[in-house]
Amino acid sequence: MSGTSPLAPKTFVELPALKGVKLSTIEAGIKYKGREDVLLMCFDKAASIAGVFTRSNCPSAPVDWCRQILNHGKAKALLVNSGNANAFTGMKGWEAVRRSAELVAEFAQCPVNEVYLASTGVIGEPLDPAPFANVLSTMVSSLKEEHWLNSARAIMTTDTFPKTATHSFSIDGVPITLNGMAKGSGMIAPDMATMLSFIATDAPIAPEILQELLKKAVDKSFNAITVDSDTSTSDTVLLFATGQAPIEAITEKSDKRLRPFQKVLNQLCLELAHLIVKDGEGARKFVEINVKGARSAKSAKKIASSIANSPLVKTAIAGEDANWGRIVMAVGKAGEPADRDRLSIFFDKIRVAFKGERDPAYDEEQTALVMKKEEISITVDLGLGRGKATVWTCDLTKDYVAINGDYRS
Amino acid sequence: MSGTSPLAPKTFVELPALKGVKLSTIEAGIKYKGREDVLLMCFDKAASIAGVFTRSNCPSAPVDWCRQILNHGKAKALLVNSGNANAFTGMKGWEAVRRSAELVAEFAQCPVNEVYLASTGVIGEPLDPAPFANVLSTMVSSLKEEHWLNSARAIMTTDTFPKTATHSFSIDGVPITLNGMAKGSGMIAPDMATMLSFIATDAPIAPEILQELLKKAVDKSFNAITVDSDTSTSDTVLLFATGQAPIEAITEKSDKRLRPFQKVLNQLCLELAHLIVKDGEGARKFVEINVKGARSAKSAKKIASSIANSPLVKTAIAGEDANWGRIVMAVGKAGEPADRDRLSIFFDKIRVAFKGERDPAYDEEQTALVMKKEEISITVDLGLGRGKATVWTCDLTKDYVAINGDYRS
Repeated sequence: MSGTSPLAPKTFVELPALKGVKLSTIEAGIKYKGREDVLLMCFDKAASIAGVFTRSNCPSAPVDWCRQILNHGKAKALLVNSGNANAFTGMKGWEAVRRSAELVAEFAQCPVNEVYLASTGVIGEPLDPAPFANVLSTMVSSLKEEHWLNSARAIMTTDTFPKTATHSFSIDGVPITLNGMAKGSGMIAPDMATMLSFIATDAPIAPEILQELLKKAVDKSFNAITVDSDTSTSDTVLLFATGQAPIEAITEKSDKRLRPFQKVLNQLCLELAHLIVKDGEGARKFVEINVKGARSAKSAKKIASSIANSPLVKTAIAGEDANWGRIVMAVGKAGEPADRDRLSIFFDKIRVAFKGERDPAYDEEQTALVMKKEEISITVDLGLGRGKATVWTCDLTKDYVAINGDYRS
Repeated sequence: MSGTSPLAPKTFVELPALKGVKLSTIEAGIKYKGREDVLLMCFDKAASIAGVFTRSNCPSAPVDWCRQILNHGKAKALLVNSGNANAFTGMKGWEAVRRSAELVAEFAQCPVNEVYLASTGVIGEPLDPAPFANVLSTMVSSLKEEHWLNSARAIMTTDTFPKTATHSFSIDGVPITLNGMAKGSGMIAPDMATMLSFIATDAPIAPEILQELLKKAVDKSFNAITVDSDTSTSDTVLLFATGQAPIEAITEKSDKRLRPFQKVLNQLCLELAHLIVKDGEGARKFVEINVKGARSAKSAKKIASSIANSPLVKTAIAGEDANWGRIVMAVGKAGEPADRDRLSIFFDKIRVAFKGERDPAYDEEQTALVMKKEEISITVDLGLGRGKATVWTCDLTKDYVAINGDYRS
């Protein structure tokens, strides 16, 4: 139960510098002892900003804050703390974000509506902004370009490993970089909330376009993963574009240079999202759920999510049991068009059920080998239409219950 | 993990005879060894029948069968087997129900559309009707009135105790009885599907009225419980009215005698539903979730279900942790109107959160005592309107994962 997830990457490397972004981390003693718990990200010049937030109707104070200033479209700094989510903290929570933004604005020499905030950790405890006042001056003086990996560490709560990803490609012959970090380990961890992700690029892209790019990327990545079907009060994904790469600014939706950017952004978000699943509380298996042949893509995603969220499917995978009956059950309960007698189900490439019955050629031994793998794909073909979707999840183990239940806050 | 649920009743007693109903059970060797696995319920005269079935889009063959004959409104017999759900069995499944109904019709001397069927157990295995042919003659010759408790035992799968309830009241000075049995232990058990319930009364009530009565009762009982948010392919609740009680038949919706009947039926369904939760896989705590102050009753039920289904709320209860932050999270993700800053949360009578913050008077020690109890109520007051709803669930323990995961089918 303790220690790094068995699904974690084998090595962790520093990301390349990203022009226009500097980072600093420190131990401010918000809650944890002996580790850094505050991240300050500063932009040399105000960056374009896009943001996607939790759909929770009870969002945290920092989420309220970010939503409120997003229209302004510019970001000069981002302050993130772990240990306290500043969620369900009433007026005190709002005062804390206001005060934190003012403090950062002073050091970053910018208006308050260019200061982004994110908090992750305990819910319901007031967040005292005083520790920020104590550390900001030191943080500002130690900002540097190559500090992504430690930044990803500073925002961890119950995560067992830091999550980063980087991609480079070129536009007009100029190299463009995207760097990203994420945290999350369960949609919400023991009394700790949140999946957070912060992504930066040096490409010059206008905020309203950036917002569309991010929304598209998130739908097929962070919004296509589930650990336990629970949604945090604080989920936040921010994308900053510093515009430091020497290419002509992208200000039109029709700009053809957006296509490769979208592709790389999608890939980066997907990698970060997968890392979150691989750090899922108690996870020992990484599972891809493909649904095809649905009436629509939306219907396919709903069915895929129903399978990915089913405790019975997830416990079966933990038990290495090719229990396709539970997959039928999860398809049935999704409330979407499905015809039992057209359904086919595959574990990896092995078809276990065909046209509403166990596949006559089904081989128990071969399937058992698939179930022993660390990464498993499940495919459901509904045989109704052309809608398809993919969702990623992990298994549900006794460790999940132990992490979340054998515990007194 | 093995043995009877700690939440089971202390004693089990036989139900009173119900005029017009006779029961018989036998070991037919469908799957289990050394226990009875088939129940035959026969009605002296064709009874009025009402039925409510799974909302799954991939229902079992017996559910399809019952739905198809329900319009006829009359039932002469019910055949139930445990060990095989006859679900996801394609055309073979349909042939099996057809053949089973024919076999029973012959012995019960009635048309096939008066024979009801239910099956619970493994999904995806063809159900061979031959064992029914072998045992029906013996079963018919041993039908008796006082055999409810053993009947409830014969329909068990992973249930750890038989579930029955009985109520008597009088209409026009004549005693009216309702007897009921149920099975279920998890919405779907290890490779076993289903919650089933069969209820009979001697009141003379027309089928179309009976259907409305049952629908109402089910909404606030069987449809207001959850063990793991998973929905079986085979869920079936049937209500039979033999009409043997010597009162004038109830054929009008406006009949005032329906009110006490509905009340008693609601109570009986609720008792049976609670027994299913108390036999929830791995359950050690019985939890009532009350939501009030919602915009509507429907909204309240959606929020209550979101709380009751949240793995993080359920693991916290297993860990005896008064983790109200997770309740906020579950309210937030329900997608229903909620104002964080008006929310109050209670564990039993202790208010832990008030107006969007931790209650200043909150006493950790007192709350810890509540969390140690075997039965806990959680109340959320949204402070928005007058909508309210109650849902029942159990905690999520390592035993749930063990039962469903440490297992190879």
